[in-house]
Amino acid sequence: MKKFALALHGGAGTLVKGMMTPEKEQQYRDALERALHLGYRVLEIGGSAIAAVEETVKSLEDCPLFNAGRGSVFTNQGTHEMDASIMDGNNLNAGAVSMISGIKNPISLAKDVMLKSEHVFLAGEGALKFAQDLGYELEPAEYFYDQFRYDQWQEIKNTDSFQLDHVASKKDEKFGTVGAVALDQHGNLAAATSTGGMTNKKWGRVGDSPIIGAGTYANNETCAVSCTGSGEFFIRNVTAFQVSALMEHANKNLQEATSEVVQNRLLKLGGDGGLIAIDKNGNISMEFNTEGMYRACKNSDGIEEIGIYG
Amino acid sequence: MKKFALALHGGAGTLVKGMMTPEKEQQYRDALERALHLGYRVLEIGGSAIAAVEETVKSLEDCPLFNAGRGSVFTNQGTHEMDASIMDGNNLNAGAVSMISGIKNPISLAKDVMLKSEHVFLAGEGALKFAQDLGYELEPAEYFYDQFRYDQWQEIKNTDSFQLDHVASKKDEKFGTVGAVALDQHGNLAAATSTGGMTNKKWGRVGDSPIIGAGTYANNETCAVSCTGSGEFFIRNVTAFQVSALMEHANKNLQEATSEVVQNRLLKLGGDGGLIAIDKNGNISMEFNTEGMYRACKNSDGIEEIGIYG
Repeated sequence: MKKFALALHGGAGTLVKGMMTPEKEQQYRDALERALHLGYRVLEIGGSAIAAVEETVKSLEDCPLFNAGRGSVFTNQGTHEMDASIMDGNNLNAGAVSMISGIKNPISLAKDVMLKSEHVFLAGEGALKFAQDLGYELEPAEYFYDQFRYDQWQEIKNTDSFQLDHVASKKDEKFGTVGAVALDQHGNLAAATSTGGMTNKKWGRVGDSPIIGAGTYANNETCAVSCTGSGEFFIRNVTAFQVSALMEHANKNLQEATSEVVQNRLLKLGGDGGLIAIDKNGNISMEFNTEGMYRACKNSDGIEEIGIYG
Repeated sequence: MKKFALALHGGAGTLVKGMMTPEKEQQYRDALERALHLGYRVLEIGGSAIAAVEETVKSLEDCPLFNAGRGSVFTNQGTHEMDASIMDGNNLNAGAVSMISGIKNPISLAKDVMLKSEHVFLAGEGALKFAQDLGYELEPAEYFYDQFRYDQWQEIKNTDSFQLDHVASKKDEKFGTVGAVALDQHGNLAAATSTGGMTNKKWGRVGDSPIIGAGTYANNETCAVSCTGSGEFFIRNVTAFQVSALMEHANKNLQEATSEVVQNRLLKLGGDGGLIAIDKNGNISMEFNTEGMYRACKNSDGIEEIGIYG
């Protein structure tokens, strides 16, 4: 049986031990474990890497703890705008959506863009029209309502600030994005990323999550990558693809490539965050330059890890 | 005096000799020359690469012959939706806008996103709000009205097809995007790309033009690149950045890198189009895998070229 593996993240940021109550921490760990096992199960029964990353990200989108899907933060207008992207390393097919509202699982819509449209990237009203043409039902605003997110927004709504999903205080800032990468038994790699954006964001800001090459990339020849962090820096660094390019052209292994990108290139520009990556041999890297990153991974050699802090 | 150089494109596609009247061809050549000289003049007097690519692209946006700015094609809704991006190779700063209407020069708005917002990428209504906050005035729909574009749209508006700015028949298909790259006397590289998208497009499709890494990339260590073509393939290939990565890591020179990307990697996926690129030493490449590409370049060694066909 060929080796297979899955890794996921739920955002990176100022996550330090003792910051959360033990109960809250346990909730996060349970949610990470649940998503991990759902995706891993897909691989175990011979499913595709694309199906595994979709299942994993859907589970994280459905959990209000993470800033994606149900747990998305409020924009400046009191709405929710979500972005997502997915890429299949087998054929370099990709799908992405941006600035969508009312969709329960943006990652599934991104997958449908990949498989059922002639396009890669659909945004805004047009993306919603595409979803409705496919029979998607729109969730009411209440589905995305979360008291904690609402309070976050109220705190800063009449200011010019916007925040990358902070938790109660600046010190606890974290980047709210979820993602998954997988290698399946057929040797195919896939990556998926989904986000609810920034609290109080305005001006239709698009981050790295829906950008193929920046927030998400997968190529069977090299690796699959999903990023989380200060999106502007991840775009300027073409971060996810940069890992692949270092492996393909500069003869770096997965760990060397992710370390070079996260600890050197991103930091040089001032970019905070991290990424998860799996290479074609099933090696896993979960690299971040922040205090912590919600993360988990599991492979067919029996290795399983769930982590929050550095 | 340090060497400086400018290159531009006005789209690639099925451009074969004899397809246009001599008068029409002369109009294109004049427009390419005008844009070239405007941008080159900026470099000649010691201006920045960013200023040069902005001037060049503005000139092409203002010309109704090209599918960008004033000459933008009609969407499925009879509106105009434009995308643009710009990148400064000196500091890897970048700005991009997508799905904007009524803005005379989208490339200038992309530059303002880079310089006057904390973001890289703004889209839709939000991007327009940002523009209006900065005092941009919106042009009326008539400004973008062009009988030729309107007739293009009428021909296919009640069908499910969309077109990459075709000219009168499928055989004459070309990709409507404009772009410029420059090396200034201070050794700085910059790239800019602007498009009016696809005739009859729906679903808020976003192509490669506003995507940093796909349609536009600049890095003083390597090169500046602006692409034109079937955007979906350019996104999946992370095309503009791919050229830079091949130079940085695989020890390829500019011509080898652009040839590898356009004639091998893009074609393998089925992607049509081309790109213009300048490296840090002022070498210029204008590479395409279609019959033709509207293009022009000029450098401080006295080389000047204007071309349409292969």
